[in-house]
Amino acid sequence: MKITRIIEQAVPIDSNIRNAYIDFSKMDVSVVAIETDVFRNGKPVIGYGFNSNGRYAPSGLLRDRFIPRLRDASAEQILNDAGDNLDPHRIRTVLMTGEKPGGHGERSTAVGVIDMAVWDIVAKVLDQPLYRVLADRYRGGEIDEKVFVYAAGGYYQPDKGLSELQEEMRSYLDMGYSVVKMKIGGDTLDEDLRRIEAVLEVVGNGRNLAVDANGRFDEETALAYAAALEPYNLFWYEEPVEPLDYELHAAVAKAYSPPLATGENLFSMQDARNLIRHGGLRADRDWLQFDCALSYGLVEYLDIVWMLEENGWSRRNCIPHGGHQLSLNIAAGLGLGGNESYPGVFQPFGGFADDMPVENSYVALPDVPGIGFEAKSELYKVLQSVAS
Amino acid sequence: MKITRIIEQAVPIDSNIRNAYIDFSKMDVSVVAIETDVFRNGKPVIGYGFNSNGRYAPSGLLRDRFIPRLRDASAEQILNDAGDNLDPHRIRTVLMTGEKPGGHGERSTAVGVIDMAVWDIVAKVLDQPLYRVLADRYRGGEIDEKVFVYAAGGYYQPDKGLSELQEEMRSYLDMGYSVVKMKIGGDTLDEDLRRIEAVLEVVGNGRNLAVDANGRFDEETALAYAAALEPYNLFWYEEPVEPLDYELHAAVAKAYSPPLATGENLFSMQDARNLIRHGGLRADRDWLQFDCALSYGLVEYLDIVWMLEENGWSRRNCIPHGGHQLSLNIAAGLGLGGNESYPGVFQPFGGFADDMPVENSYVALPDVPGIGFEAKSELYKVLQSVAS
Repeated sequence: MKITRIIEQAVPIDSNIRNAYIDFSKMDVSVVAIETDVFRNGKPVIGYGFNSNGRYAPSGLLRDRFIPRLRDASAEQILNDAGDNLDPHRIRTVLMTGEKPGGHGERSTAVGVIDMAVWDIVAKVLDQPLYRVLADRYRGGEIDEKVFVYAAGGYYQPDKGLSELQEEMRSYLDMGYSVVKMKIGGDTLDEDLRRIEAVLEVVGNGRNLAVDANGRFDEETALAYAAALEPYNLFWYEEPVEPLDYELHAAVAKAYSPPLATGENLFSMQDARNLIRHGGLRADRDWLQFDCALSYGLVEYLDIVWMLEENGWSRRNCIPHGGHQLSLNIAAGLGLGGNESYPGVFQPFGGFADDMPVENSYVALPDVPGIGFEAKSELYKVLQSVAS
Repeated sequence: MKITRIIEQAVPIDSNIRNAYIDFSKMDVSVVAIETDVFRNGKPVIGYGFNSNGRYAPSGLLRDRFIPRLRDASAEQILNDAGDNLDPHRIRTVLMTGEKPGGHGERSTAVGVIDMAVWDIVAKVLDQPLYRVLADRYRGGEIDEKVFVYAAGGYYQPDKGLSELQEEMRSYLDMGYSVVKMKIGGDTLDEDLRRIEAVLEVVGNGRNLAVDANGRFDEETALAYAAALEPYNLFWYEEPVEPLDYELHAAVAKAYSPPLATGENLFSMQDARNLIRHGGLRADRDWLQFDCALSYGLVEYLDIVWMLEENGWSRRNCIPHGGHQLSLNIAAGLGLGGNESYPGVFQPFGGFADDMPVENSYVALPDVPGIGFEAKSELYKVLQSVAS
């Protein structure tokens, strides 16, 4: 088995939205297509990968360092013992050769993009959905038939008032979501509370609403929001503070008793472990949002899962950031707590298979080989155009 | 005042050396030249920046994101209030617009390279050496006339035996260094102890020798080395363990009483603060090696210095990684503990002004405007070739 071609292209995900930290109007993602000499149904197997929203396309890193390393590797360095499929763990070693420890950003995205394409190939060569491959390899074959998903939206947008916000949330309920998420911290606390009250009118109660501050608050603001939010008993209060300020996370956790969520801006097992060790989070309620596509991929994510379990956490505490089909496969195959979903934005990268409706905030996965990109037609069009 | 031109070029620092983690044969650095419409001595002021060894040239990030942001910024966004010089703090804000928190790697190098060129311009426009500008702005004018430097070498190289290692170290003493550093962890403990004993024969005693494990050791190995090294009372024992494993740093600090050193692979104030909070290091003896050129530049380094002082540490505990003239200026202007030096490797980027000999492990700085690149002829040739 051989890799015959590796292509990278940056694709815009232009969106007229902003969270409390950045606007997305200049955001792009790298799409990588890896073609092999293995044929299935008369066509060469091609694996696709892309990074999640929120970090820019790491095109330069892919082209200058990581794609050349993969291209130059020997068969033994990248194949399994039988030589009939790629070995993602060995490929990870190839990609990280010559890289010093620490400094987990950007390159973690580049490696994550390649890793996604590699797992897509692994499952396609086995002619199985990836979630089944993962369940067989790492979970004794058990699969979650459907995965909890929540609708992430509620962004700040020009001319978006309370009624537009309510309309947006109503549309998510109509799509089959019962849990929704909205941004906070881009306005005053009073105004955000009005926005929250408006959404609660639509979704019924706090257990159906998560809020996300995108790491913006200082201690005083985080604690003021915590005190104001506590009575709503929300699904979660996400990224109240700077993602690497573990001590401040611990202070918020001490003051706020309902669930917190964080982790989307920690891009390695080492950073995730520091959050667990020093962040004061509570394994009986808090949520972890590490995103494999920004964090060296599924190979690293497996290390994060084992690390969590060694530290008394369950993988059910994990609901990854990113809203992509790789994390959905991981959730179903490894048994995570769920996955993010962006029904309105980051198209066509966000979202799941076309013919799989969301029901009561759960979604099933298609029975197609690989990660399932071929079952999401608008995304597959983009991926195919990169490969062609 | 205007920026008229920004050029980036990756330059190899091909070196036939390796530390315990990587080899440097494929390493390169980004050189950035920023030209302005300010004239000094009949020529336009050009500022130069480059990244330290150990991380690759962030060319793609510079070309795709950071240089365009700087190029597209308005005069008010990048100049001081008087409009007659660049403002590095404002430029930092411009560069980081649209960047999410967390994930401090690669982009921290790209921003660091630009920051270096910006400070070079600031000092050249003021017609002063940068160390004087820094002393005036941040230290009431006090300057250290000379800076402690140690000779970092002792790399593993093919066919390098004990006598070659001794010869290398002897050459550093001949150059005027009294403190030298060697790599450990690329061989067995027994062999490394033989290498250490061989070097001690040359440098006299442990206070003249630092050792560097480059973050390679697991707990057992780190502690075994700690026990074996303790009797030598070395200048320092550097990066015994994974740079982000603060808990393990604390365990080593508990077991090892002479000085430790670490920090070169932490690239932000937030990461540095976590080391101080959770790493169990000792302000009365341990050394911090944060490298501004890999960590968003001097603007971030100032934040690190203030953070250290808030936490009861002295800036004298800082001896930056990287061996470049920017850190030497910071050391002299802000009053750090010293600076790294690579007399044998990473040329022409490593090292200091041509006519400034090292004496008793101290070096003085030239009285030339800017960072002083023009006083280091081999480096200036490379920088000029990028700008031309």
